[in-house]
Amino acid sequence: MYISETSVDVRYAETDQMGVVYHANYLIWMEIGRSALISDIGFSYAGLEEKGYLSPVIDLNVSYKQPMRYGDTAVIRTWIEHHGRLRTTYGYEIAHPDGTIAATGKSVHTLVHKDTFRPVALRKVDPEWEAKYVEIAKGTD
Amino acid sequence: MYISETSVDVRYAETDQMGVVYHANYLIWMEIGRSALISDIGFSYAGLEEKGYLSPVIDLNVSYKQPMRYGDTAVIRTWIEHHGRLRTTYGYEIAHPDGTIAATGKSVHTLVHKDTFRPVALRKVDPEWEAKYVEIAKGTD
Amino acid sequence: MYISETSVDVRYAETDQMGVVYHANYLIWMEIGRSALISDIGFSYAGLEEKGYLSPVIDLNVSYKQPMRYGDTAVIRTWIEHHGRLRTTYGYEIAHPDGTIAATGKSVHTLVHKDTFRPVALRKVDPEWEAKYVEIAKGTD
Amino acid sequence: MYISETSVDVRYAETDQMGVVYHANYLIWMEIGRSALISDIGFSYAGLEEKGYLSPVIDLNVSYKQPMRYGDTAVIRTWIEHHGRLRTTYGYEIAHPDGTIAATGKSVHTLVHKDTFRPVALRKVDPEWEAKYVEIAKGTD
Repeated sequence: MYISETSVDVRYAETDQMGVVYHANYLIWMEIGRSALISDIGFSYAGLEEKGYLSPVIDLNVSYKQPMRYGDTAVIRTWIEHHGRLRTTYGYEIAHPDGTIAATGKSVHTLVHKDTFRPVALRKVDPEWEAKYVEIAKGTD
Repeated sequence: MYISETSVDVRYAETDQMGVVYHANYLIWMEIGRSALISDIGFSYAGLEEKGYLSPVIDLNVSYKQPMRYGDTAVIRTWIEHHGRLRTTYGYEIAHPDGTIAATGKSVHTLVHKDTFRPVALRKVDPEWEAKYVEIAKGTD
Repeated sequence: MYISETSVDVRYAETDQMGVVYHANYLIWMEIGRSALISDIGFSYAGLEEKGYLSPVIDLNVSYKQPMRYGDTAVIRTWIEHHGRLRTTYGYEIAHPDGTIAATGKSVHTLVHKDTFRPVALRKVDPEWEAKYVEIAKGTD
Repeated sequence: MYISETSVDVRYAETDQMGVVYHANYLIWMEIGRSALISDIGFSYAGLEEKGYLSPVIDLNVSYKQPMRYGDTAVIRTWIEHHGRLRTTYGYEIAHPDGTIAATGKSVHTLVHKDTFRPVALRKVDPEWEAKYVEIAKGTD
């Protein structure tokens, strides 16, 4: 199992009047985590879209533990929780630099043709990428 | 059980390069649904904050069924899935005007003091609101 | 000269830790104002994109007068400040319901082919729309 | 005159259905540029807020030259265009890594007390910061 790690500085625009990061922004950080993981293992999500595919989220959950504030840095850890034939589940842990967990989450993605939104298997699109996901996933079908 | 209904026109800013509404924006619509429900039954979330309380999200999940696009109107249905002593779970259904479900979701909220983020029970803060939530909730403790 | 009027309720997500609406969100409201104006006079921006055109912003300015807060309603007034052969300037006034101005702004737009981003004149794309803009614009070439 | 330089990778969430970065997001990058400049010269915007001050935008303009896309990196250059007794104007240049300008902008800021939104001069709040701004500003009163 491989865990990718990247970090983002909290943006002022990401706060709300509670004085903490607005909860929807964690989903954007989770996306940054996914991109970083994909890039770490030698592939490119932007490249996948250029080839005519999209990887929409079909299900997600987030648990918020400890708020983040402007001035903080969020450490994002991302891994492949499960890789199946048509669905990939990513796992996330978002932490303060001192290790305190700010949030944990999971998101399930499919792969579809850009024009039709019809599903396609990653192994048809990019067998090397598929092999790498099978190798690093916590679980597979 | 009471179901609140409100609607929003998709904003251009809410789309992404997939040509559909970016998934994190559904969380903003869910928040609009919560506010509408609270307002429908005669209370005010803005008023609650003015009195010194916040109601942060501690857990959420969303299932995405059918993408929404610019030009569409999203119909947001919101209800109280469960109301406990310290936690309230809201349920959501986001639909296209023709009835097709775009997404479903749930979010769990606590109530805290603005300054300390320490939890407080709704029945201590506003007994009438508490009574109304108990009345309309699908489930209670 | 025609002035379109629409309104939006401030969203929680639009606030920042200053306790007021984050300044970038006024640009989103200005876009809602443009769409409303176009719709008021019988055309559709979404329809224009479906026909293969885009209308990107090339220049904008905003003056912020009086902050808006969660719980407020923003009244957005939009008009055509100037309509030229290849550029249209929209004017905006964003007000509190009591009439106090929250912000004023202008934005300059071109019309381009979606695939090439090459400019095209509105009168080539939709002569009726062009005629209407000439009629309602404060100024023209 | 001092020019601060920082960079951001375009986020998927920052794109819209035009396939390019949504124009309002440049304002967020300009804010990141301001924070970077302040940090470069040894001060902290977050620290200023903790001391009870805010620095709201009162006027801004942006010229968009060349769109940015997902997968691109934006290089943000920020400087003090003008520093007056009660107003500071920041200048910005946002470029593609190859040097092509994506956008230029300016924003005017005041400094106010957090609780009252009443203006205060930077030299009253932090004389060292004031001295540094006078030193690096392109223009002063």
